[in-house]
Amino acid sequence: MSEVREKAALAKSASAVLNTLTTKQKNDALLKVASALIERNQEIIEANNEDLEHGRQNGTSDSLLDRLKLNEKRIEDIAEGLRLITQLPDPIGETLEVIERPNGLRIKKIRVPLGVIGMIYEARPNVTVDAAGLALKTGNAVVLRGGSSALSSNKKIVEVLHDALAKTAIPTHAVQLIEDPNRSSVDEMLKLNGLLDVVIPRGGSSLIQTVVQNATVPVIETGAGICHTYIDASAKPDMARDIALNAKVQRPSVCNSMETLLVHEQFAALHLSHLTEHFKDASVELRGSEKALTYVPWAVPATEEDFRTEYNDYILNIKVVSSLDEALQHIATYGTMHSECIVTEDEQNAKRFLQEVDAAAVYHNASTRFTDGFEFGFGAEIGISTQKLHARGPMGLPALTSIKYLVYGNGQIRN
Amino acid sequence: MSEVREKAALAKSASAVLNTLTTKQKNDALLKVASALIERNQEIIEANNEDLEHGRQNGTSDSLLDRLKLNEKRIEDIAEGLRLITQLPDPIGETLEVIERPNGLRIKKIRVPLGVIGMIYEARPNVTVDAAGLALKTGNAVVLRGGSSALSSNKKIVEVLHDALAKTAIPTHAVQLIEDPNRSSVDEMLKLNGLLDVVIPRGGSSLIQTVVQNATVPVIETGAGICHTYIDASAKPDMARDIALNAKVQRPSVCNSMETLLVHEQFAALHLSHLTEHFKDASVELRGSEKALTYVPWAVPATEEDFRTEYNDYILNIKVVSSLDEALQHIATYGTMHSECIVTEDEQNAKRFLQEVDAAAVYHNASTRFTDGFEFGFGAEIGISTQKLHARGPMGLPALTSIKYLVYGNGQIRN
Repeated sequence: MSEVREKAALAKSASAVLNTLTTKQKNDALLKVASALIERNQEIIEANNEDLEHGRQNGTSDSLLDRLKLNEKRIEDIAEGLRLITQLPDPIGETLEVIERPNGLRIKKIRVPLGVIGMIYEARPNVTVDAAGLALKTGNAVVLRGGSSALSSNKKIVEVLHDALAKTAIPTHAVQLIEDPNRSSVDEMLKLNGLLDVVIPRGGSSLIQTVVQNATVPVIETGAGICHTYIDASAKPDMARDIALNAKVQRPSVCNSMETLLVHEQFAALHLSHLTEHFKDASVELRGSEKALTYVPWAVPATEEDFRTEYNDYILNIKVVSSLDEALQHIATYGTMHSECIVTEDEQNAKRFLQEVDAAAVYHNASTRFTDGFEFGFGAEIGISTQKLHARGPMGLPALTSIKYLVYGNGQIRN
Repeated sequence: MSEVREKAALAKSASAVLNTLTTKQKNDALLKVASALIERNQEIIEANNEDLEHGRQNGTSDSLLDRLKLNEKRIEDIAEGLRLITQLPDPIGETLEVIERPNGLRIKKIRVPLGVIGMIYEARPNVTVDAAGLALKTGNAVVLRGGSSALSSNKKIVEVLHDALAKTAIPTHAVQLIEDPNRSSVDEMLKLNGLLDVVIPRGGSSLIQTVVQNATVPVIETGAGICHTYIDASAKPDMARDIALNAKVQRPSVCNSMETLLVHEQFAALHLSHLTEHFKDASVELRGSEKALTYVPWAVPATEEDFRTEYNDYILNIKVVSSLDEALQHIATYGTMHSECIVTEDEQNAKRFLQEVDAAAVYHNASTRFTDGFEFGFGAEIGISTQKLHARGPMGLPALTSIKYLVYGNGQIRN
């Protein structure tokens, strides 16, 4: 049996036990894991150093090395993340509905774990702990397939996790790490119907496309964010400036940051030239539509391809539009259904934008950077879903659950 | 552009309009369609006769021809189904949650349509109307790909639908029928990411497997049901008999009927021989495990393959087990997570069964035949989901919806 199939089968056998644990048993176990990560942080840092060294030899960029790097502070943050998960309400077992039927049948709809979650992700080793914590809290087993660049770190982290779980009610088999760094192990996971209940990819768009294109197991698509901010004619100039700047530069590398600024021509005529000075000061490279270039002559012309690109960087497209309709049309064409914003004082236009834009989160007068589990008040998230099935937007604990109908009778049969 | 892509694009353009309609507009339109189906029933019956004639020439079985056949009564039933859909509450626009954040952001979680639903189904032309009705009521456009054996019927039905919709607020493009009878049109639908938001297959297990194995669009898996009834040692003999018989013979052709009866050895020793006489009287062919054959010598031996088969027919496997655990293990191995039942007077065993069996609906002392949208009180259903993502069990209107977060600010930016 292959590593992937064997480990997924072990995870599935553990999931039957997980489903019977109390909230306290799960929380106690996660707290033990949090302590163990801190106690053994030097071992983890050593393993991480191997990954970093390996990355340097392979010419990995500084920014990627920084994402990969673990130190005492970061391990403390990861452990604190686990502790926060223990404080979230446990959705499992919750009764969502009770239906009494005329024939005397009583039907209870309750929340149950999904079963076994497959996580496929890239560099950052903190995802290993986050994903395991969220999965275990919701009674799910998890099969982790991290990036090969973090393999030593992930192996050590999972070793620490297993050692800690061995003293708890959670079976150690509930967390499995795929160590095979080849692409074939990803492909195998994607076809494990019957063993995996869902696969969640987290990473760049090429990883996500690989998963969407090849999985036969149900997928929750996350992440890709080509987000727009539309400044309407009636927008307050200061508010528009603050929101647009925040959406672009507060953290350009994340999925809810802005890639394209749409500006109504009336606003553009009065304020665009001034507004773009702020982007210049923040070292943002601007790419403009033809009309935008008339106000921002130092920008480079934007191509069709630019409007389809998630830069995750200090680069921004600016397009001047003649109407709300043109903005809506642009978003429908180029958006990824993640987060979209209108800045306007016109309530009718705001209402139309919120109604007509098809995205997980649609904002009126606030930065798209708020699309995030913590900012929505859900606590830690396993990702931000950009599909419409099962979960949409920041996925808190309920996104990792399913339901089940319990039907209580006293001999009912169907006529 | 291919037929499939062109029609899906038309459906998508209609879905933007559908999303803005009121409940009354949608209900009025569905009532007009219901009337039109009855007014033009002779045209529909004529078209259906072509399909029947074609089927006879191709040697289609009588039972399949019967499923395909439309007459005045059946068209009246189909129209009545549409009228019932208009009486169901409209989930669209419902506010599911309001979150007030410390920074003043107000986040509203609302129900929205999925967008465009792809339905791939087999013989029965009533699905054409049911699926269109459920989709439209929830503000979704729908691309229908029915079986080639019902193509004339489906074309006429959709023509009637389009003519009726032309006088309503629902755009006629909202309902699209794929007329290409080749398998390639199914394959193309399965890959229409960006145009279809979900594909729902309804039909036999080979159709469903084709869809699951090949779709890159998210799928809701429906239907396959290898359902078990477990008669525990303490079961009341009469209740056990009634429930088991009902689960098998009340309508063997449907997914929630029983395929395998598991019987505790203590119950078997006292009652199995007598119980099986009733199945004999109902012309059910029995296939028994080794132990079962000692009580039912006239049964044929059951093979491993039998336990994995959804007969949908007057055939039943019987297996004698020595414990609840053995029954649970059998169900975990051979079940399809559809509907499972325990008949017992032992509350502890009932509790364990309900907790540990991983299925959409788990019954204590009632027939599995109740897993159905009407029987659960949901009204018409688009299918019974056997997956754990998005929807599980009978899928009422909410299963055809997604959610969206509307975020209201007054200039909030993220620190």
